[in-house]
Amino acid sequence: MDNQDRPAEMSKDPLVVFTPSGKRGRFPAGTPVLTAARRLGVDLDSVCGGRGICSKCQITPSYGEFSKHGVTVAPDALSEWNAVEDRYDRKRGLKPGRRLGCQAQILRDVVIDVPPESQVHRQVVRKAAAVRAIEMDPATRLFYVEVDAPDMHEPTGDLERVKRALRAQWEIDDIAADLPAIAGLQKTLRKGEFRITVALHKARADSVPELVAAWPGLHEAGLYGLAIDLGSTTIAAHLTDLETGEVIASSGIMNPQIRFGEDLMSRVSYSMMNPGGDAEMTRAVREALDTLTTEIAAEAGIEPGLILEAVFVCNPVMHHLLLGIDPVELGQAPFALATSSALDLPARDLGLTALPATAQVYLLPCIAGHVGADAAAVTLAEEPQKSEDLVLIVDVGTNAEIILGDKRRVLACSSPTGPAFEGAQISSGQRAAAGAIDAIRIDPETKEPRFRVIGSELWSDEPGFAEATAATGITGICGSGIIEAVAEMRMAGVLDPSGLIGSAEATGTARCIAEGRTHAYVIHDGTAEGGPLITVTQGDIRAIQLAKSALYAGARLLMDEMGVDRIDRVVLAGAFGAHISPKHAMVLGMIPDVVLDKVTSAGNAAGTGARLALCNLAARRAIEENVRLITKVETAIEPRFQEHFVAANAIPHATDSFPELSKIVPLPAVSFNAGGGEDRPRRRRRRS
Amino acid sequence: MDNQDRPAEMSKDPLVVFTPSGKRGRFPAGTPVLTAARRLGVDLDSVCGGRGICSKCQITPSYGEFSKHGVTVAPDALSEWNAVEDRYDRKRGLKPGRRLGCQAQILRDVVIDVPPESQVHRQVVRKAAAVRAIEMDPATRLFYVEVDAPDMHEPTGDLERVKRALRAQWEIDDIAADLPAIAGLQKTLRKGEFRITVALHKARADSVPELVAAWPGLHEAGLYGLAIDLGSTTIAAHLTDLETGEVIASSGIMNPQIRFGEDLMSRVSYSMMNPGGDAEMTRAVREALDTLTTEIAAEAGIEPGLILEAVFVCNPVMHHLLLGIDPVELGQAPFALATSSALDLPARDLGLTALPATAQVYLLPCIAGHVGADAAAVTLAEEPQKSEDLVLIVDVGTNAEIILGDKRRVLACSSPTGPAFEGAQISSGQRAAAGAIDAIRIDPETKEPRFRVIGSELWSDEPGFAEATAATGITGICGSGIIEAVAEMRMAGVLDPSGLIGSAEATGTARCIAEGRTHAYVIHDGTAEGGPLITVTQGDIRAIQLAKSALYAGARLLMDEMGVDRIDRVVLAGAFGAHISPKHAMVLGMIPDVVLDKVTSAGNAAGTGARLALCNLAARRAIEENVRLITKVETAIEPRFQEHFVAANAIPHATDSFPELSKIVPLPAVSFNAGGGEDRPRRRRRRS
Repeated sequence: MDNQDRPAEMSKDPLVVFTPSGKRGRFPAGTPVLTAARRLGVDLDSVCGGRGICSKCQITPSYGEFSKHGVTVAPDALSEWNAVEDRYDRKRGLKPGRRLGCQAQILRDVVIDVPPESQVHRQVVRKAAAVRAIEMDPATRLFYVEVDAPDMHEPTGDLERVKRALRAQWEIDDIAADLPAIAGLQKTLRKGEFRITVALHKARADSVPELVAAWPGLHEAGLYGLAIDLGSTTIAAHLTDLETGEVIASSGIMNPQIRFGEDLMSRVSYSMMNPGGDAEMTRAVREALDTLTTEIAAEAGIEPGLILEAVFVCNPVMHHLLLGIDPVELGQAPFALATSSALDLPARDLGLTALPATAQVYLLPCIAGHVGADAAAVTLAEEPQKSEDLVLIVDVGTNAEIILGDKRRVLACSSPTGPAFEGAQISSGQRAAAGAIDAIRIDPETKEPRFRVIGSELWSDEPGFAEATAATGITGICGSGIIEAVAEMRMAGVLDPSGLIGSAEATGTARCIAEGRTHAYVIHDGTAEGGPLITVTQGDIRAIQLAKSALYAGARLLMDEMGVDRIDRVVLAGAFGAHISPKHAMVLGMIPDVVLDKVTSAGNAAGTGARLALCNLAARRAIEENVRLITKVETAIEPRFQEHFVAANAIPHATDSFPELSKIVPLPAVSFNAGGGEDRPRRRRRRS
Repeated sequence: MDNQDRPAEMSKDPLVVFTPSGKRGRFPAGTPVLTAARRLGVDLDSVCGGRGICSKCQITPSYGEFSKHGVTVAPDALSEWNAVEDRYDRKRGLKPGRRLGCQAQILRDVVIDVPPESQVHRQVVRKAAAVRAIEMDPATRLFYVEVDAPDMHEPTGDLERVKRALRAQWEIDDIAADLPAIAGLQKTLRKGEFRITVALHKARADSVPELVAAWPGLHEAGLYGLAIDLGSTTIAAHLTDLETGEVIASSGIMNPQIRFGEDLMSRVSYSMMNPGGDAEMTRAVREALDTLTTEIAAEAGIEPGLILEAVFVCNPVMHHLLLGIDPVELGQAPFALATSSALDLPARDLGLTALPATAQVYLLPCIAGHVGADAAAVTLAEEPQKSEDLVLIVDVGTNAEIILGDKRRVLACSSPTGPAFEGAQISSGQRAAAGAIDAIRIDPETKEPRFRVIGSELWSDEPGFAEATAATGITGICGSGIIEAVAEMRMAGVLDPSGLIGSAEATGTARCIAEGRTHAYVIHDGTAEGGPLITVTQGDIRAIQLAKSALYAGARLLMDEMGVDRIDRVVLAGAFGAHISPKHAMVLGMIPDVVLDKVTSAGNAAGTGARLALCNLAARRAIEENVRLITKVETAIEPRFQEHFVAANAIPHATDSFPELSKIVPLPAVSFNAGGGEDRPRRRRRRS
């Protein structure tokens, strides 16, 4: 049919040049643009297979002279605007200059631009921490097919005729079909009068695509996936459009397993001490995931039945408990994982009933018994293995994932910081939700605090603050808030290097109140309005000291293993209260010394890794390959970890250790929760 | 290592010849027999991989001169009996002359016989209807592996180390693992001190084997599969040893869907009329399968957890209801199946909870909307496509599967006979179980009946009958019993050609009693002992007439399609009351005329097809290929079917139509139920 193989000079067929790819070829006059694009391997989307109904194949012809391509494009290079395009334009509207690639036929030499939204493998730029773009190549895709009606004289099953249509219309050789998808297929076919859109899931390059959903006619309600960071204390999910890559809702929920133990090891103990305890915890987390799924779908205004994929990142204990595997082996040396490989599973095998039965789950691989899929996800998002300089990545959570490396070598460990950094085990702590204090400054002279709460952009000493926070109230302190509070208390001299809160007499402020034999610092007294008294107690300081010492000791241990005593830069990440203030983290002594402008905040890097894996199959293969190359360091049995831990207890006076800190304007502290998602953080006007 | 590639003359290595395969090769002195067998591709079993613990590799060395093989075997051709063999012999016993192939080393030229029980692909001869042997090649097999203990410094998951062991010890490149199997793996590994036996399921030649079970140490409790014939009225199962192919228990249960409608179309109607009715019927049949599984495992004395496979044959409506698919499309033209292909599914997707969650199910393909996997199974068992002469195969059930064909062409249809042939809709009917009358003779002179009941080999007029049946009682008539009863009533003149039972006056026997405006024939009056009055009523005769007319009409329709009016032979099959008496079937007019000795009884051919598919993967591929070649004829819309049906209503006097019948000794009527299974029918002493 086409003349690509003949020398171009000899052919009189029109030449078509596609931009931005630059792919070119000659085709007989009358060839639809979509057909030409397919033959040349140009990335031009289509769900309906060229029937003029899905509009995914929109293109923009260019007219005039193109010396770069050696083509002059005449105004009649494409066939005339036709009835199908006209109908589509009237019903849905086409942008000026756009044509439908399946309708417009090539008549003379032409240059055709494929706009980004018409590319299958379009790139989604991550706006917040725009390290790199995500190329869309999800495991699940839509295909519109016109299926033969059944014929009594040549009996075949409906599924077999769908297969035949996919072969003829999409060149998809064979598909498998998940039983729940088969069960609903007959009604869908008849409702759509044998025209249906199917969703096919292809987990790996060499796997047979699996039919996971079908809708009558052209399905236009979209197709979604969940990227889930399943932490010990909090579960964060991003609902992502699998066609555009856009995050349409982000939401979080407490991990209800907290009632079985606040940290991982106490949950492992619970399982050891209570027969059936692991099953109980598995049930709890699965129920929470069902709740989260229902809520996030409602927030985004979509049917949960359209969520056909979920990608999970989590630490090994959560990994096992999600899968229904007793985590007991993870509580004792040699910390053997039941399985470390990435897993592809149907959601129903995980008992996730809020997702459709055919939804497919991908779990990132674990690195070792204490270094899980969450650490793998962080490396996927931050790519330390590609870094020229030595980077320390710290993912702050109940269990901190710590990664140190560069192009030559990547090390990883985890450290049991406990839930303090997530606002748990803190007297006024809460998760990062509306009403939580997430930023604090304390005047070194007056020792008076000012603060902001999630849900308002005003500081507490700004006009209108009371009105702005009236709806949510001021309910507690979240993870990033407590880190700032302790660091500010130290800088203001309310706290001594050993971590002791001074008395009112010693500090000269009535905000230091007695509490038993120790003292507490009052950040906000809302009792007059029936609200809480929000303080930082001596117990809170101790919890933060333990947490930060564990984190610091883990980082030092990796530095020992790497044989270095300086690092080049630090990336701070965390699922909740996502953007930790680098300055305060360093004042607190969470991380080793580094020049302050070399500390960046990456938001929920594990969640980003999950999103990457959700949107792009190659990212899954990359992380499966990368985890083999990561050297894992075991903190639990390493005596030096204990030494570093003990040595890291103090909170040195910030301006002593880091003289530049006092001169620097703090970086914005941004929390992704309660709204936008990490791609669209609520940037606040700055005055501080 | 071995010298196979060098010319035999030049090698001084010992020659080993295996019988019965005749495979031969030279190996360095000291090579274990098992190693030599593996290199030569000799079919010698081993589960433990040559560690001297499983004893599957037993061989028998032959000594002396073997001119056929050109070898003289010296007494010291193999290494001496060793400690491992000695221990095994003391603990379990080795037959005289036997050695363990993994222990005995080849020292000099030797001839080695592999006894049948040491062959993986051993043949199981079907004793009853010994049409052909089954070669064992099941989808699920056992492998013993020694797994590395976990090492903190080289962290890998337990599953990944099992994979490594399978690669190193069994050359199995990669496996997948079903989640429930992963969940239990850690405990099994530790219980077995990292020595375990795994069961791998490989559904197709090109599929990755899947880990479906694991046991500590060497697993010796065996591995089982269920071959299930899921009929509209009755469900029959054969519990089969997947290592030997032996049927260790056969059992049946009524299909509880009967309460939703006795035949298929009334169940389809139930689904049409009642929203959720299909789900209700699905639940009912799955529960019955759970009960059947539990009962058959208990009967055989094995753990249900050892049943790792199930193969189903069924008609299309049962196929859909088992899968959870609404059968409504099967109730109206064009009778479209949801799917016609063979299916591989985990048992848990079918909600079969009595089987282990990882048990794998195989469903044979369907041929068309009214011709199901049961007909496919019958062709697998009876192979009409290989027949030189034109054979009619009739599988009697609530829906009869009728197949006509030879080497050139095979036709199939189904016919809605209703459940009368299975003893349902019959006033004294019951399923073929202990206490049921399954054979009857009526004296043409006295009109007195004599009969046998399942559970005893005596006729009712033989001494000791009362004692022999005291335990079970005489409870009713099963399918083969009712066929004989009606035919015998006709031959004895109790019934006229139109099917009317005569009065006591007309027939001259008090056994013909009035029942309303019609008459009934009393076979057995047990009321004096508190038992039932067992009669054949006019209603029973009408039900049998309808059933046999439907069957006959279906067969005639296929003959019309084939363009023949004679057939060469008939095979009668049926799941329950399995062995129908050919003579009585022909007297009744169930089947077209054919010389009596060309009528054979095949027992439960569909069940046999299921067993073949259970034991041999090639049989699955064969049937998947064969169903494409079968031409399906639709009875429901064919006017000639109605004509044949009406014409077939009469019951001609047997000896008029078939003069030879009166001279022939009846074939044994054998029922497989309540005991052995079709391979081991209870043959009874004959006197009639």
